[in-house]
Amino acid sequence: MTSSTLYGERLSAVQSELGRCSASLLVVGLSSSMRYLTGFTDEPGERLLVLLIPREGEPGFVVPELYAEQVLTATGLARNFVWADHEGSHHALAAALKDVARWPGPVLVEESLWSEFLLACQRALPQHAFSSATPILAKLRMRKDAHEVELLRRAGAIADEAFRRVLETPFAGRTEIEIAAALADAMRDAGADGTAFEPLVASGPAAALPHYRAGGRRIARGDVVILDYGCRTGGYRSDISRTVVCGEPSREIRAAHDAVRDAQQRAVNAVKPGVAAEEIDRTARDALTSRGLGDRFIHRTGHGVGLDIHEPPYIVAGNKTLLEPGMVFSVEPGVYFPERFGVRIEDVVVVSESGSVPMTAATHELLIVG
Amino acid sequence: MTSSTLYGERLSAVQSELGRCSASLLVVGLSSSMRYLTGFTDEPGERLLVLLIPREGEPGFVVPELYAEQVLTATGLARNFVWADHEGSHHALAAALKDVARWPGPVLVEESLWSEFLLACQRALPQHAFSSATPILAKLRMRKDAHEVELLRRAGAIADEAFRRVLETPFAGRTEIEIAAALADAMRDAGADGTAFEPLVASGPAAALPHYRAGGRRIARGDVVILDYGCRTGGYRSDISRTVVCGEPSREIRAAHDAVRDAQQRAVNAVKPGVAAEEIDRTARDALTSRGLGDRFIHRTGHGVGLDIHEPPYIVAGNKTLLEPGMVFSVEPGVYFPERFGVRIEDVVVVSESGSVPMTAATHELLIVG
Repeated sequence: MTSSTLYGERLSAVQSELGRCSASLLVVGLSSSMRYLTGFTDEPGERLLVLLIPREGEPGFVVPELYAEQVLTATGLARNFVWADHEGSHHALAAALKDVARWPGPVLVEESLWSEFLLACQRALPQHAFSSATPILAKLRMRKDAHEVELLRRAGAIADEAFRRVLETPFAGRTEIEIAAALADAMRDAGADGTAFEPLVASGPAAALPHYRAGGRRIARGDVVILDYGCRTGGYRSDISRTVVCGEPSREIRAAHDAVRDAQQRAVNAVKPGVAAEEIDRTARDALTSRGLGDRFIHRTGHGVGLDIHEPPYIVAGNKTLLEPGMVFSVEPGVYFPERFGVRIEDVVVVSESGSVPMTAATHELLIVG
Repeated sequence: MTSSTLYGERLSAVQSELGRCSASLLVVGLSSSMRYLTGFTDEPGERLLVLLIPREGEPGFVVPELYAEQVLTATGLARNFVWADHEGSHHALAAALKDVARWPGPVLVEESLWSEFLLACQRALPQHAFSSATPILAKLRMRKDAHEVELLRRAGAIADEAFRRVLETPFAGRTEIEIAAALADAMRDAGADGTAFEPLVASGPAAALPHYRAGGRRIARGDVVILDYGCRTGGYRSDISRTVVCGEPSREIRAAHDAVRDAQQRAVNAVKPGVAAEEIDRTARDALTSRGLGDRFIHRTGHGVGLDIHEPPYIVAGNKTLLEPGMVFSVEPGVYFPERFGVRIEDVVVVSESGSVPMTAATHELLIVG
C-alpha cells in the first residue's frame, strides 16, 4: 500500500465516524493524530496550524505561509487556507471553518489542540457545540496494523539493547542524569530516532516517586534504581521499566520485587481478545493485594503505546474497553515506599489472536549492579 | 530572594491582573507558565493537572495522586484537589472549580492547555465565559529580571561554543542529522540541560524551507547550510542561526548573505526602549526590500525567547507593543529561494536602557566549511 493510500483510508475512516455520530467536522492540531491521518506533523507552537476534516468532502489545513509548501508536499492535501505572519491567522481560520462546517452537528476537537486555538474556533462558530474527538480517534488508532507493530517491535528491541549496554558499567558513583544520558546514547547508537520521553532514572528515595525524572543524585551501595525509558523509531515508541539494586538487596526489597514480578506476569498472562482493559488492572492489583501491597500500587496498570507514549487503551479500573488483536499497551505494576524505595516492572505487549506478545525481552530477575 | 518569595510575588502579580480585568480565575496547564508561577512543571499529558489561580485567595492544583507529593514539595501550595487513576479527574476538577470560581467574570485559560481540559472546565462552569490568558501572562513574563537574563546569557554562550566546535570537522559527506547531533552533543558537553528545540540543519534546497528540521541528506560541495539551534539552561533557552557554505560561494549566495547580514544588523541597531515591536520587523524588511529581496523574506523578524522558545513579544507587522528594558527576543531575517537555497542570520537580544545586548557573539561573516 502506498502511503497516500494509507492516509486516504484513514481519513475516510474518520469521515465515516463523523457521519455515524452526526458531527460536523474534526479539528486536529499538530499532534500524533495529525501524523496518523496525513503523515505530517511538527511540534505544536503558537502559530495556528490545524487540519480540518469535514464530515464529507476534502480535508484541508489552515496553515502558516512558511509551512504551506511542506504541508502540501508531505500530504498532497490542497484545500488549504494559508495565512502570513503579518496577517495573523484569524481570517484564514474563519474562512476555512465557514467553508467546511456545513452541518449543524458538533465540532469534534483532537485532545491536545491548544486552548488558544479551540477558543478561536468557538468564536468563529458560535452556533456549534464542541466536544472531544478522543472516542473516535482512539477507536481508529487503538488497533495497530502489521507495519505499526513491526515499528513498535523494533523500538522495543532497541530498548532491550540499551538495557544490556547500560549494565556494562557499574552504577555506584554515577549520577541519575549520567545513566539517563547513557540510555539515550545507547538507543541512538542502536538506531533510534530519539527517546520516547525523557528517560527516568530514580535511585534511593526517589524511586518511591513514580513520576520523578532523573537528577544529580549519585547512586550509592544499597540503592534501588528504577530505569523507565524508551525510544522512537518511525514515530512509534517503546517503553520499558526495570528495577535493579546497587549491591546486595535486603529481604524487603527482594520480597517487593518478587511481588511486582508476579503481578506483572499474571497481568500479562490475562491479556487476550475479549477481556476488558480493567480486568488486566484488577489482575495486577489483586496479586499485589494478596501479598499485602495493594495500597502501595498507586497508579493504573498501564497505557496504550503507539505514536504517543500514552494513548488509549488505558489499563485502569473503570475502562470496559474490550481488548482486540493489534491493541498495544504497557503492563507496569509498581509498589512505592515513601522516602525509602520503589519497584516497577514494565513491558509493552501487543494483543494477539489468543494472548499477547511482549515487545521487550530483558530479564525480569532482580539484577545486582556494581 | 528565596524562590518561594519569587513565586509568591509572581502569583500575586497574576491576581492583581485578574482583578484589573475582572476575571474570575486563571487555569494553567503543564507549561512554561506553570513553571514561571510555581517552579513546577512537567511534559503535558493525558492526565489532568492544572493550576487554578482565583482572583483572590490561595491558588491550588487539581493533581493526579501520583504527582501530588511532588507538586506539594515543589510548590508549597496546599489547596489541592487530588484524584486517583481509578476515579478519573472529573469530580476533583468540578469540586475545585466550584471552590475557586466565586466571581462572575471570565475564566482565563493559558494558551497551551489541552482542549480536552478546556472542554472539561467549560462543562463544569457552564455560566462562565472563557478567554485567553495570553495578554496577562505575556505582560508579566515579557520583562526578564537579572537572574533570567543571566540564564539566557549562559544559554547563548553555550550555543556559541557549539558553533565553534561543529566547525572543527568538515561538513562535506556528513548528513544533516549527524551535524544536528554534533550540535546537541557539543551543547550538552558545554553544560546545557538539553536542546531548546530539535536542531535545524537545512542543506542545499532544504535551506529554502524555513521550518525544515534535519534529514538524511548528505552535504555536498556547493551547498548552503543553515544551522538554527539552541539549548536550555535552568529552563531558559538560546536560539541562534548561522548560514555557512560548503566550498566557494557563488556571487548570488554572497549577495544574499550580505543583504541578510545588513538587514539583521540594522534591525538589531533599531532596538531600544519605546520602539514598537513592528518597527524592528519593518527595519529588517525595508533593508531587504531595498535590495530587491523583500518578497523572499516570508516570515516575521523574530519572537520572544525565555522559558519558551517562542513567546511574546513577537517581532511582526501589526505588533504595537513598545519595547521595554528586559524584553528578550530573536532578530532573524532570512531570504528563501525555493528549491535552491536560503540564508538566515539570528541572534537573541535583550533590550537594555539605551539599546540592546546580544546573547550570542558568533561571527556574522559567511564562513566557508570543508
